[in-house]
Amino acid sequence: MPDGKDLNVKSADPAVREMIAKAAKLEVKTVWDRYEAMLPQCGFGDTGLCCRHCLQGPCRIDPFGEGPTEGICGATADTMVARGLDRAIAAGTAAHSGHARHLAHALLKVSKGQAPSYSIKEVEKLRAVATRLSIQVDGRSDMDVAGDVARAALADFHEKDTPVLWAATVVNPERAKVLTDLGLVPVGIDHEVSEIMHRTLYGVDSDPVNLLLGGLRCGVADLAGCYMATDLADILFGIPQPTVTEANLGTLKADAVNIALHGHNPLLSDLLVTRAESRKGAAMAAGASGINLVGICCTGNEVMMRHGIPACTHSVSQEMAILTGALDAMVVDYQCIMPSVATVAECMGTTLITTMEIGKIPGAKHIPFTEETAAERADEIYDIAIANFKRRKGKPVDIPQIKTPVVAGFSVEAIVSALAKLDANDPLKPVIDNIKSGNIRGVCLFAGCNNVKVPQDSNFIAIARKLLKENVLVLATGCGAGALMRHGFMDPANTDELCGEGLRAVLRAIGEANGLGGPLPAVLHMGSCVDNSRAVALTVAVAQYLGVDTDKLPVVASAAEAVSEKAVSIGAYAVAAGLPTHVGVMLPVLGSQLVTQVLTDKVKGLTGGYFIVDLDPESAAEKLLAAIDERRAGLGL
Amino acid sequence: MPDGKDLNVKSADPAVREMIAKAAKLEVKTVWDRYEAMLPQCGFGDTGLCCRHCLQGPCRIDPFGEGPTEGICGATADTMVARGLDRAIAAGTAAHSGHARHLAHALLKVSKGQAPSYSIKEVEKLRAVATRLSIQVDGRSDMDVAGDVARAALADFHEKDTPVLWAATVVNPERAKVLTDLGLVPVGIDHEVSEIMHRTLYGVDSDPVNLLLGGLRCGVADLAGCYMATDLADILFGIPQPTVTEANLGTLKADAVNIALHGHNPLLSDLLVTRAESRKGAAMAAGASGINLVGICCTGNEVMMRHGIPACTHSVSQEMAILTGALDAMVVDYQCIMPSVATVAECMGTTLITTMEIGKIPGAKHIPFTEETAAERADEIYDIAIANFKRRKGKPVDIPQIKTPVVAGFSVEAIVSALAKLDANDPLKPVIDNIKSGNIRGVCLFAGCNNVKVPQDSNFIAIARKLLKENVLVLATGCGAGALMRHGFMDPANTDELCGEGLRAVLRAIGEANGLGGPLPAVLHMGSCVDNSRAVALTVAVAQYLGVDTDKLPVVASAAEAVSEKAVSIGAYAVAAGLPTHVGVMLPVLGSQLVTQVLTDKVKGLTGGYFIVDLDPESAAEKLLAAIDERRAGLGL
Repeated sequence: MPDGKDLNVKSADPAVREMIAKAAKLEVKTVWDRYEAMLPQCGFGDTGLCCRHCLQGPCRIDPFGEGPTEGICGATADTMVARGLDRAIAAGTAAHSGHARHLAHALLKVSKGQAPSYSIKEVEKLRAVATRLSIQVDGRSDMDVAGDVARAALADFHEKDTPVLWAATVVNPERAKVLTDLGLVPVGIDHEVSEIMHRTLYGVDSDPVNLLLGGLRCGVADLAGCYMATDLADILFGIPQPTVTEANLGTLKADAVNIALHGHNPLLSDLLVTRAESRKGAAMAAGASGINLVGICCTGNEVMMRHGIPACTHSVSQEMAILTGALDAMVVDYQCIMPSVATVAECMGTTLITTMEIGKIPGAKHIPFTEETAAERADEIYDIAIANFKRRKGKPVDIPQIKTPVVAGFSVEAIVSALAKLDANDPLKPVIDNIKSGNIRGVCLFAGCNNVKVPQDSNFIAIARKLLKENVLVLATGCGAGALMRHGFMDPANTDELCGEGLRAVLRAIGEANGLGGPLPAVLHMGSCVDNSRAVALTVAVAQYLGVDTDKLPVVASAAEAVSEKAVSIGAYAVAAGLPTHVGVMLPVLGSQLVTQVLTDKVKGLTGGYFIVDLDPESAAEKLLAAIDERRAGLGL
Repeated sequence: MPDGKDLNVKSADPAVREMIAKAAKLEVKTVWDRYEAMLPQCGFGDTGLCCRHCLQGPCRIDPFGEGPTEGICGATADTMVARGLDRAIAAGTAAHSGHARHLAHALLKVSKGQAPSYSIKEVEKLRAVATRLSIQVDGRSDMDVAGDVARAALADFHEKDTPVLWAATVVNPERAKVLTDLGLVPVGIDHEVSEIMHRTLYGVDSDPVNLLLGGLRCGVADLAGCYMATDLADILFGIPQPTVTEANLGTLKADAVNIALHGHNPLLSDLLVTRAESRKGAAMAAGASGINLVGICCTGNEVMMRHGIPACTHSVSQEMAILTGALDAMVVDYQCIMPSVATVAECMGTTLITTMEIGKIPGAKHIPFTEETAAERADEIYDIAIANFKRRKGKPVDIPQIKTPVVAGFSVEAIVSALAKLDANDPLKPVIDNIKSGNIRGVCLFAGCNNVKVPQDSNFIAIARKLLKENVLVLATGCGAGALMRHGFMDPANTDELCGEGLRAVLRAIGEANGLGGPLPAVLHMGSCVDNSRAVALTVAVAQYLGVDTDKLPVVASAAEAVSEKAVSIGAYAVAAGLPTHVGVMLPVLGSQLVTQVLTDKVKGLTGGYFIVDLDPESAAEKLLAAIDERRAGLGL
């Protein structure tokens, strides 16, 4: 296993490195080439000291005090930085909740019988969510309840008599009070996004602290969008359960029709998975050994968690999957799809298929997806991929023979169910007891993306190794999970090597109680990036068990290689929830000492949470451990 | 009257120039100083070729092809530019509709008896708006109808069974069909803002044309926000009627308690106006001659149109009002309030009072405004201003003795009513006949801000002079109206000098039929920037009269000195409505030839409207005239 310390490589993943070498040979430009071409990056933008919010600009403030000290309108560095950060949070919130809204519409259509390819997979969860929302369930049909849940979801986007339910009902009462007292309970998800855009307009809010509080409220709206997306996906597609699969480019098969599912929403990708068997014949008739679906980014996580579909790669290395030459089609929905994949796909003979109205890419084939015609569209995609395989068949491909076993699928329900094997009446007790005893020193959630500025995966690897050795229970989502799975952190065979003694014993006890004949994997894969909600749910459950607020728990988070504005909005809700939250790349805030101080220190006095911005993984790990120990001490542990 | 051609001055307004000189003497920095300090501005930002939508950036593309030709994710110049423009439209839409939503909440509270300081001033308009929205009015109380109108307004922010009603019901059927066919009818105002933020996220939409169509749909949502704001303000505060008043810094009075009302929403400013009389005694007891309310920017336009409150100044020269030393308080709500006013106010002894939760300014006194406590807050503001007057009393002030007579208040209702004096049964006929005969060659709406990059007012003056001479009927809103009013364009005494023969005759005929003993002013002041909706309403009425779509009319628009992202969103809906729309400053789109071509040319094939970006006012005027003539020819005129 790599140690993540070799900073001379672009990626800690040898499979990716093989493909980078191939790209160089073929003179196909990749994200690393474009990054190098972009250096040095603009220091104004890097520090948040650039503003384009009006036509008198662009304005920029020199962080070293040479040149203008304020924008043309008089906006200070503090105002500029806070406004910029707010807009990033608004964008992240809009994206997660756009995904959730999409699922809410699908659920509504299911409830009306308008989406023949979908059904309610988890009646129990549907009813549990409905009950949480105070929707009556007794004596009502599943479809009636589903309709009401979908309508409640859609209603959460706007002002109504209640605040955003997917925020207000998912946190513990103590946290709800903190958020209420601070004015951080969102009114409506879209409402908060829109209000951020209003207040960050030229000549509206120029108070940096006021702006940051607005940003935190929008962050809580982002939690609602994420939580809603998880709930609805579980209802429609099933609650993830532990599943054995694999990760990395070696999951591609030269002789199969290889289709990569890339993006975020399970609506199309889940259907493609369930229809694969029915298309196998067509694939074989074309001379293929079968159909090989692989995931990229979070829609990959969704189908891995629910169907064991292997993960081909994630995030920054998405072009590498195409560079193998073995991908017949890459099907994308939205978010984190680098437009460059169109060019690389053209070079390599892969068909890039866009499916969403709001996510088109020049050069891609667009197959518009709707819930009503989902099956036909899915089959059309298969036809294209199979036809493309026929063209490719027999030509050489370069699939790195590298893949790693993965056990994924640790939803909260799955974790509780596994723990119930230790204590059926009080499933959380074993975890709590082990936290108290120190066998589990704390919990760290790894989330977010791979950033080209960091040797791919190296921050995740370094921090996770350190924390595991220190008996920190590690959860992972999104491309953070992708990073750790590629490097064996989700292979139970490595648990003993990776974990400190206490944690090792806990993971082994749970694994054996569940008849696995060995431990759980060192890192528990909780899902996609909206599934950070699962980590929140677990944290809230532990807090309620202990009767303390979430900001008292030895729970921390790390977006060690963050890219998307979604990572910023997730960070905002992690901080609003009271968590020390590490970011391993530069946030564009360093241009304002005030904003930096508020985010990394003063906000602690409000929500208990705060940002830890540290680009050095070793030092970041130390800070996360210190935060855990501080919390432990606070609990008298 | 100035000719607007002296580019060596910072402002075409001599009153402003006096204050610029004073600022220099006092070494108080103003917007012009900050602009000079910012030069040269960043060419990447200027051309839209800078992107900060993810943490892998900032990225920039050299417009001359030296350096990176795409962002790190592979986003091309086209994608980058389109995404940036979309976010500006989203911000503008969020702002206008935020203002409208605020009024909707106030109307709802009025309907429930929860806003004692407010009432329904225009029952007839309330009922007309309700009828347009298919809300039943017969046999119902005003309060019931008002409640339903308010709820319909709030419902327009989100998805429901109908599209956004304030968009769908305000355009002519032909235009509604065009918008529907192009997918440009918004689903919900906040929904569109949020969707723009989603699709412009890293890795979502990278198709520039798709992005621009999304931007246009958001622009139509902006029309809804503007139209709603106008409707609701008229219902609550009255439909503007022609009123005689004055403009410029000379409206300040050394011996009075001078209070500037700055921002956009009439909710607080209208109340301050109606309570002024009751506070006169207190002011006089403090040694003042009385209370002198003056307006700045659009809240100034609102109270000018409805109460004849003089306009002190607008937009880029807002600091100059404070520099007189005569301002006791500047009361602001939101939008276009330069944060620098706090510093200038401190230098000059003016109390800056912020009133909105989303619009705080460091250094200002914050008095939180709510509809429930509006009167108390208003009186508190008066107390502060009067106390401040006491400190100032007797000290020298520098009020430029420059002001101009203004006739303002040309709502559509007021225009129709004035025309009815010529033809009671068919009020639009005289205008249509004069358009046909060529006495009115066309119509131009001037809107938008003053931009520090343009010698203040000079573009407006130059273009308006030219168009008026060519018999173009000129309407104005926002700070465009502010610019023209300061230079005598709204003084009927100048109508003969300013207008060509045909237009002069029309304006005189209407004026005399209305017993004014002279012509209407050369430029008709239609209101604030949300009141661009009034120009749309007039355009739609003329189109319906002629039985043609709005893109066939000889109607054009010009934001000759635009600043705010609101100007960009207004431009988007003007183009969606089919109007040739001039922008007199650089839009950050020139980095993409494709986007520039779509906006200035290809979009014409879709909506009939298009952007004319031209920084030279003479040439812009020629292009606007050519567009008018092209439309006339199309109508066979």
